[in-house]
Amino acid sequence: MNEDATDAVLAAIQFDAQGLVPAIAQQQDTGEVLMLAWMNREAVTETLATGRVCYFSRSRNGLWRKGETSGQVQHLRELRVDCDGDTLLLLVEQQGVACHTGRRSCFFRAVRDGALVEIAAPLVSPEQLYGAGHTHG
Amino acid sequence: MNEDATDAVLAAIQFDAQGLVPAIAQQQDTGEVLMLAWMNREAVTETLATGRVCYFSRSRNGLWRKGETSGQVQHLRELRVDCDGDTLLLLVEQQGVACHTGRRSCFFRAVRDGALVEIAAPLVSPEQLYGAGHTHG
Repeated sequence: MNEDATDAVLAAIQFDAQGLVPAIAQQQDTGEVLMLAWMNREAVTETLATGRVCYFSRSRNGLWRKGETSGQVQHLRELRVDCDGDTLLLLVEQQGVACHTGRRSCFFRAVRDGALVEIAAPLVSPEQLYGAGHTHG
Repeated sequence: MNEDATDAVLAAIQFDAQGLVPAIAQQQDTGEVLMLAWMNREAVTETLATGRVCYFSRSRNGLWRKGETSGQVQHLRELRVDCDGDTLLLLVEQQGVACHTGRRSCFFRAVRDGALVEIAAPLVSPEQLYGAGHTHG
């Protein structure tokens, strides 16, 4: 990614009072919405530079290189900016699963027949993803 | 929607300090991500009760019944909650266009060939959607 494109993207984004913008990750071929996380300027810059998605973890207050611990990397295929510049859409190639619970997508609970039910099972166990003692990554 | 399901959804949502949660709207059949907006408890409750998507407008500080002005209504097909309960995914049937610019999706700017470019044209003009003097709805 050249610097001009990165500058143009950063200029188009309306970061919030915390310097963050929500980013939706969508699997590029199936269209499945995988997760939503947050990015700061540094995360956007690194993601465009490396082609591997890097978020900002609000709970850990630092950069979160998706898959660094779990191996479940997201390869960026295209970055889109919405009309108001306050949301990003990342078209990605998700390696393995996106959710820390071991499910492909984080959106595995749905209202069906008048109840909130689980509609997808874990494909791998969190222990396989993180070993003991981790919960995210 | 029965009250039990609404209560279960509200209990599963982690509203932020402003009492809001981000909601992604996705066209139910094509998988196209249309927009991201925000909901409060009242918007979630009304959306589940009526089957028509109602957001909370942060700029107008009130309920935003999508399509009320423009006619571009979103019919809810399924509501999903993510693993942490801090994002909603709405599978919708979008009537007309989702974006106030007259485009089908709000995500019409993309990084391609090293530049941020528009990848979709308006299908209708904002004037057709809102008449004079409006910008959203």
